[in-house]
Amino acid sequence: MISFNCDYMEGAHPLILERLAQINTQKISGYGLDEYCMRAKEKIRAACRRPQADVQFLVGGTQTNTIAIDAMLRHNEGVIAATSGHINVHEAGAIEACGHKVMAVPATLGKIDIDALENLLAASTAEFDAVGWEHYVVPRAVYASFPTEYGTLYTLEELRRLRSICDRYHLYLYVDGARMGYGLAAAEDVDLPQLAQLADVFYLGGTKMGALFGEAVVVCNPNISLSRGLIKQRGALLAKGWLLGVQFDILMTDGLYWELGRNAVRQAMKMRKTLVAKGWASYIDSPTNQQFFVIPNESVNRLKTQVGFDIIEAADANHTVVRLCTSWATTSAQIEELIDAIG
Amino acid sequence: MISFNCDYMEGAHPLILERLAQINTQKISGYGLDEYCMRAKEKIRAACRRPQADVQFLVGGTQTNTIAIDAMLRHNEGVIAATSGHINVHEAGAIEACGHKVMAVPATLGKIDIDALENLLAASTAEFDAVGWEHYVVPRAVYASFPTEYGTLYTLEELRRLRSICDRYHLYLYVDGARMGYGLAAAEDVDLPQLAQLADVFYLGGTKMGALFGEAVVVCNPNISLSRGLIKQRGALLAKGWLLGVQFDILMTDGLYWELGRNAVRQAMKMRKTLVAKGWASYIDSPTNQQFFVIPNESVNRLKTQVGFDIIEAADANHTVVRLCTSWATTSAQIEELIDAIG
Amino acid sequence: MISFNCDYMEGAHPLILERLAQINTQKISGYGLDEYCMRAKEKIRAACRRPQADVQFLVGGTQTNTIAIDAMLRHNEGVIAATSGHINVHEAGAIEACGHKVMAVPATLGKIDIDALENLLAASTAEFDAVGWEHYVVPRAVYASFPTEYGTLYTLEELRRLRSICDRYHLYLYVDGARMGYGLAAAEDVDLPQLAQLADVFYLGGTKMGALFGEAVVVCNPNISLSRGLIKQRGALLAKGWLLGVQFDILMTDGLYWELGRNAVRQAMKMRKTLVAKGWASYIDSPTNQQFFVIPNESVNRLKTQVGFDIIEAADANHTVVRLCTSWATTSAQIEELIDAIG
Amino acid sequence: MISFNCDYMEGAHPLILERLAQINTQKISGYGLDEYCMRAKEKIRAACRRPQADVQFLVGGTQTNTIAIDAMLRHNEGVIAATSGHINVHEAGAIEACGHKVMAVPATLGKIDIDALENLLAASTAEFDAVGWEHYVVPRAVYASFPTEYGTLYTLEELRRLRSICDRYHLYLYVDGARMGYGLAAAEDVDLPQLAQLADVFYLGGTKMGALFGEAVVVCNPNISLSRGLIKQRGALLAKGWLLGVQFDILMTDGLYWELGRNAVRQAMKMRKTLVAKGWASYIDSPTNQQFFVIPNESVNRLKTQVGFDIIEAADANHTVVRLCTSWATTSAQIEELIDAIG
Repeated sequence: MISFNCDYMEGAHPLILERLAQINTQKISGYGLDEYCMRAKEKIRAACRRPQADVQFLVGGTQTNTIAIDAMLRHNEGVIAATSGHINVHEAGAIEACGHKVMAVPATLGKIDIDALENLLAASTAEFDAVGWEHYVVPRAVYASFPTEYGTLYTLEELRRLRSICDRYHLYLYVDGARMGYGLAAAEDVDLPQLAQLADVFYLGGTKMGALFGEAVVVCNPNISLSRGLIKQRGALLAKGWLLGVQFDILMTDGLYWELGRNAVRQAMKMRKTLVAKGWASYIDSPTNQQFFVIPNESVNRLKTQVGFDIIEAADANHTVVRLCTSWATTSAQIEELIDAIG
Repeated sequence: MISFNCDYMEGAHPLILERLAQINTQKISGYGLDEYCMRAKEKIRAACRRPQADVQFLVGGTQTNTIAIDAMLRHNEGVIAATSGHINVHEAGAIEACGHKVMAVPATLGKIDIDALENLLAASTAEFDAVGWEHYVVPRAVYASFPTEYGTLYTLEELRRLRSICDRYHLYLYVDGARMGYGLAAAEDVDLPQLAQLADVFYLGGTKMGALFGEAVVVCNPNISLSRGLIKQRGALLAKGWLLGVQFDILMTDGLYWELGRNAVRQAMKMRKTLVAKGWASYIDSPTNQQFFVIPNESVNRLKTQVGFDIIEAADANHTVVRLCTSWATTSAQIEELIDAIG
Repeated sequence: MISFNCDYMEGAHPLILERLAQINTQKISGYGLDEYCMRAKEKIRAACRRPQADVQFLVGGTQTNTIAIDAMLRHNEGVIAATSGHINVHEAGAIEACGHKVMAVPATLGKIDIDALENLLAASTAEFDAVGWEHYVVPRAVYASFPTEYGTLYTLEELRRLRSICDRYHLYLYVDGARMGYGLAAAEDVDLPQLAQLADVFYLGGTKMGALFGEAVVVCNPNISLSRGLIKQRGALLAKGWLLGVQFDILMTDGLYWELGRNAVRQAMKMRKTLVAKGWASYIDSPTNQQFFVIPNESVNRLKTQVGFDIIEAADANHTVVRLCTSWATTSAQIEELIDAIG
Repeated sequence: MISFNCDYMEGAHPLILERLAQINTQKISGYGLDEYCMRAKEKIRAACRRPQADVQFLVGGTQTNTIAIDAMLRHNEGVIAATSGHINVHEAGAIEACGHKVMAVPATLGKIDIDALENLLAASTAEFDAVGWEHYVVPRAVYASFPTEYGTLYTLEELRRLRSICDRYHLYLYVDGARMGYGLAAAEDVDLPQLAQLADVFYLGGTKMGALFGEAVVVCNPNISLSRGLIKQRGALLAKGWLLGVQFDILMTDGLYWELGRNAVRQAMKMRKTLVAKGWASYIDSPTNQQFFVIPNESVNRLKTQVGFDIIEAADANHTVVRLCTSWATTSAQIEELIDAIG
């Protein structure tokens, strides 16, 4: 059965497995201090046009969000996120386990409602001034995902507005890039150097983008220290750190990361076209690899015998919201099979 | 100038200062293991009709909420509170600093919207079942304040509904009783034994109720261990713990605690009557010692030269929401002075 | 029965109780922003000759140590203490509960063995350089108590050596002054301004020095932020903060704090003379208010029917190490009674 | 240049890479709920003869130690470890970052000095009883590594003594098995079922034993909940959890894990024999894959141009302690090359 449940069901791009096999018996020094990591970091810095950025490789998304955000906050400081933000919903309270509040603001289609954010900051600053800042969690960072958990994208203008609000209120801007390759492949007006210029810290996801696992955190703001000691203390300093370096070295070579992103988006658009043609309503207009549709229940029941996908929630008595994802590995043949199944 | 800003501006009931002076040179053993503490605990257990309850004395409200809630939670468990709940807004992220998420639910007049709570729990349980509980913060306790931060009170029926929801979803019910004496003095159908039967843990506030400082936590559910080791570790085990025992011993003798509560409520009702007679709108119908009114700005400006009170927020261009509090120490003369000032 | 078990068994100096009674019905604003606190802070800064120092009032010793040390450390940084240091032994892991390791170094008579400290730092720095700092807890502060848990005192030269080591290894020097008044009363060559010049942060204890409770933290190093937000978050921002201000205001007026210290030391020296004259061996040569002696078991058994004191440990089959403490409140009559009891 | 620096320098056993390549395009569900993980867990339970044990796969050693120990402790409880234990020295304070003290006891050749442990527990229990348990960190678990950081092994009798002490003092016994395969290959009288019967929790290391990465925690004591929620919260729930299942499935098939262990030990014994024959002194008599020798400095300097190894410390002015490790991947040819280099 073909499956479109999520974008981390396959292994790794064949070039990665090939390279791992090639160097399997090489003896490589540990903890990410090897030449593969050095080379991959250099390529990432170049792609971002941030020659001074600090790049660190971590294993997974929750780990990355937690460590990066913890590096930015102190004591009674918190991080603002959309109510639907991954750190607010799906990370089992990892940020709170580091001692920090996630301050939820309203979201539209997964994106922070920027007007609401601005109003909240103005109101809370006034309240803090009146009552005393020491009674409150003081916001110190904004978490935004690109693309969001619903596949949507901030426009360049929206990112610039976020940046400007962050500057005004002394907040760091952190961008969760678990699916960054899909986001930038679909973005109309944002590219990596722009994003790297606007964010204080962000990451390029590997797990969902052709690696077995791994995320590359890019610390653009030199005032933020995402130290190796913090990484180690959180159990996130991989002994064979070169596994991460090797993977990102390959992904960052000859534009592979971006090509993988484009493939997923291309296949998603084909999928989307079919679903729309079938007369099913798009739940959210996502330009990226995650597609959300509202499908009649009988169609859901028939389809799920042939195709894997995720049930999100009941839309009404007769319809269900579902998610179908493509990935870097999705083939045209798989999309054809889906089209046939939809009928 | 008379002041109605809050209910913790005075020292202590004279009987307390008198007793402290009497025993000042007695040598009393430390850390709350003295006879004053023993006696006060016994009186509290008797007043609650919970002879088996564990009673612990702590110094302040944020400390008490934090330690009590931390005692109830484990790893990725969280506590539900009204959006306006003290732990969600005014405690500088103390719960999060212990590693736990405060899960905000909508509130009406300071009280948890019980329907919203029920819907949230039903929905999130379904979502957790579908996606996997390990990805979420699992609610494990409900925080309710009695009276609330807006002076309002849950009815007995509402408390019973909360209890029943807690039972259904395996949640502890924790009641913040910083102003418990004012709440029970005003409550129409809730008394202390009922509250002690419904809550797993609650506290009887002293700081705002005639003590110099101090809160008495009552742990009714024997499965919850609010250990002295936890208290010590959090810097909350007072060396001269007998200071707390002496104060609660006096407050719990001859119904003093309840009399102090009734005084504040009586004076608040006189104040309320005057404000209403003046034609000012009540912002919230509070039966307890905190009164919230919407007052024309020119009246605010005039009044504040004679009377201390708290500005809450602008109601509209011409009106302001203010808070006036009575306390255990408020005298009829002070209320007369306020009435004169209002004119 | 007279008692010499510890130095926090009495209430407060009568002047404090008197003042509290005087202002009991005054309405004073909360959270330590009142004039009493302001005045007390000013007096402390003057006594320390540190006009720029930040002074904060907290409730108890463990709370103070924990918050002050947490303010100095980040992520994988730790604090060095003598094996017998209070934070290493008697605070229920409060520092660890904030996420930081207490790094124990050998101690002699309660004092850090400075040679051992120096060797440890040299060796560990070399090891960290070789293996990588990220694998270790990096020492960032030294905790020293003055006087120590055994009543002993660092000399000025020893404090200077500690300071110089701290400078060399980029460590903060934190001095636990729970009994500072007794220490400075007994010190041959250290005074408060000197101590305030050498330490980055220290505190003047009140609980054991004539206050009902309370400790005054003095932050001399402006790079350390012991913020009110941190204090609040840890449940340590007293609602009636003026209780602390009033007490320290009195203690810091007309040299009362120092006079109380001298009284305890004077009485302790009388006690000591008697014990020595009796032929009992001093366990530790303490010049301060805590005296440790090795006493024949039969004498222990006889004495304890008349006098309260603490059993520390068995010295050998026939002798016991005991502790007898004087305090700010110890009277000559009590010492006479002790002398009679010793016989 | 051949390298014997450590045992995590190679990739994975070829069978693992082969299998990963085979299933690379299969779509496998996430978070360790797949059939590979199920199968690997079953094999581990069978090998341990603990059909009811809970098995969880994690990514690395520090992460595993931290999460397993955190699952065992509450508030002011701590874990006892040898001074040289990995959690006490080389994990950047990861246990403390979870709020718990590592309580160091003296060690001999990396092993807990069991007499010292017993004395410490007896003494501290007496002290806690006298002063009050709430002032202390209460030991609740013992951490022992098998083999230790110095390659040594507890005998069955020693493990039984540890177990019996743990039973007497209500402690959990946790065994760090980062190199378990090497330990059991070398052990004279301990096998896996025995170890699984004595420990409450332990892990079978994969990272150093033929896997790319991964550790398998075995929770034998059903009272300990090492929940998936805790794992997720700590950023340790691998999205492609099947990567761990596949690797342990292969390692646990046809005794591969044990064969890899025996190879490393066999090669280490050849190495050892050569070093001894050369006249160099063994620093520690290790029967496992880590060999520590004291070598004349001129030999160190000569050797290090041809062979990689770790410098541990200066033994004296003319000698250096070095470590040479074999691994699952060490070949006889590599050992021959080493022998030639030693000359």
